[in-house]
Amino acid sequence: MLPVCVVGLGLIGGSVLRAAGAAGRAVWGATTSATDADGARAAGFTVEADVDDALRRADAEDALIVLAVPLTAMSDVLRSVSTFAPGCRLTDVASVKGAVAEAVRKINPYARYVGGHPMAGASRSGWVSGSAELFRDAAWVVNTEDDVDQEAWSEVVRLALSCGAYVVPSSAAAHDDAVARVSHLPHLLAAVLATVGVDGGPLALALAASSFGDGTRVAASRPELVQAMCEANRAALLDAVDEALGRLGAARGSLASTGGLAATVNAGYLARRELEQHRSAARRTVQVDLTAEGALAKLRDLGNQGGRLTSLEGMTATLRIV
Amino acid sequence: MLPVCVVGLGLIGGSVLRAAGAAGRAVWGATTSATDADGARAAGFTVEADVDDALRRADAEDALIVLAVPLTAMSDVLRSVSTFAPGCRLTDVASVKGAVAEAVRKINPYARYVGGHPMAGASRSGWVSGSAELFRDAAWVVNTEDDVDQEAWSEVVRLALSCGAYVVPSSAAAHDDAVARVSHLPHLLAAVLATVGVDGGPLALALAASSFGDGTRVAASRPELVQAMCEANRAALLDAVDEALGRLGAARGSLASTGGLAATVNAGYLARRELEQHRSAARRTVQVDLTAEGALAKLRDLGNQGGRLTSLEGMTATLRIV
Repeated sequence: MLPVCVVGLGLIGGSVLRAAGAAGRAVWGATTSATDADGARAAGFTVEADVDDALRRADAEDALIVLAVPLTAMSDVLRSVSTFAPGCRLTDVASVKGAVAEAVRKINPYARYVGGHPMAGASRSGWVSGSAELFRDAAWVVNTEDDVDQEAWSEVVRLALSCGAYVVPSSAAAHDDAVARVSHLPHLLAAVLATVGVDGGPLALALAASSFGDGTRVAASRPELVQAMCEANRAALLDAVDEALGRLGAARGSLASTGGLAATVNAGYLARRELEQHRSAARRTVQVDLTAEGALAKLRDLGNQGGRLTSLEGMTATLRIV
Repeated sequence: MLPVCVVGLGLIGGSVLRAAGAAGRAVWGATTSATDADGARAAGFTVEADVDDALRRADAEDALIVLAVPLTAMSDVLRSVSTFAPGCRLTDVASVKGAVAEAVRKINPYARYVGGHPMAGASRSGWVSGSAELFRDAAWVVNTEDDVDQEAWSEVVRLALSCGAYVVPSSAAAHDDAVARVSHLPHLLAAVLATVGVDGGPLALALAASSFGDGTRVAASRPELVQAMCEANRAALLDAVDEALGRLGAARGSLASTGGLAATVNAGYLARRELEQHRSAARRTVQVDLTAEGALAKLRDLGNQGGRLTSLEGMTATLRIV
């Protein structure tokens, strides 16, 4: 297994460091946060003096580099990678993929980059909140475009699997559309709901029960992180917001005219049931030979159908799909 | 303590029956659901043969009647109350108060009716889901208009307190505005979010993590109940939906033009913090003499400030307020 160099040791980066270490890999990290560095060192991990040192070591030891810095810091770190470790296999854990891929194309078009996104909670943060088990049985998107460096792709998949996650193969564009709907829109709706609720004054707060608590929970996330991830996914998020505005506007129109909300409420009920059924659905197994023509397209197709890559042995990927 | 007759033995009615019984009151119930009736009888409770019988007994034993039927059945049951127990103190547990008060005014303008609303979860249902502890430390709104029958009001407050809840004194209109914001709007937004998410196909479902799960949880509630409670609170809900549409539209405009979401995200973050601070705030104690002039108005004011009535001894109410 390749050694792993993790840049950024917050919730996600810190958990990757722990999980990859627990899987038996050589691991080291770097971070500009003294708090996170102290925490990681106290837990027995190697934290290099600075990001440049960590990248130099990655270059020397042919490590897989994992960028786990905030989106706003990504371009700076990519420049450092270009300088100190341009030939290393490279991935990231950012919550949008198109914008990072675009930055990589601009800064180092020859990088052996494969975008990744482990789907783990965002309402806590920092090294202290991380865990080697954070990714256990979680989805970890690995970008699977036709022009991907297949060897780097395999290494990123192996990292995700060794962290206990399953891999969802997906293009950057399909990923960004999906997370706009199921991650970024929820953050915006939670913010709007929290604001409208609190506008109702102390009585509204006093009467707020679980529906309001659940619906506003992610509004407690660090606002600069939410803002950065939503803004970085602008085009896809605009589409999702427009659909939400259209549906909420239709509910408003129906309530005002006929007084009826059956269409809105029933559609939501059926959709939520679909989510629950998707989660509990029985899955069959499919194997994909990575050396076959069109293998990457097939993986993307399976990912679009909700397929989960659960093992990679040699050149054979095994997926479980509904 | 007055005996209590509960009509409707679902989640809320069944829990009132259990909690009032556990508090040492004589209790009996009635329901048109054979499943709920069987469950209540199996647990050792008296379930009368039909609603009319239960109301006749309430009349004979001067009981407090608690209507815990769906909103759609409320008018029918109110007519039965008029026929069989017109003089009894009467309350309900419906999630909107203006519409029920209006129905009472039409069907039995002389009813000794005081509206109530225990704020307990709605995503489960039926006798089987209930518990004597459902209302422990929960808010129970008791309508406190100037023309209220003060003796009936006191009995409803005592019922709520004996079920372990604290009482929030409020007018029907203020209650309905508040729950539109913190209960009915969350249901509509959850329905919209669930629908937009599922429109993203299996990939979106595969990537849905806790933000989507939390944001859509109440969409799993029984749709006919959600629809009835939202539709019955039409005017207040329209205001809340309009505010939500305005705020989401502003976010959309800002994202499309400058690309910035700081205002939306920060407002939501601060609002959620306000909710959390409200919940954990230290409270001081205020006493209200119910025989004093303007006592009911004072109680409503305190309720509007998030005050909680926690005891009623003789004619002295004690409230805890931030």
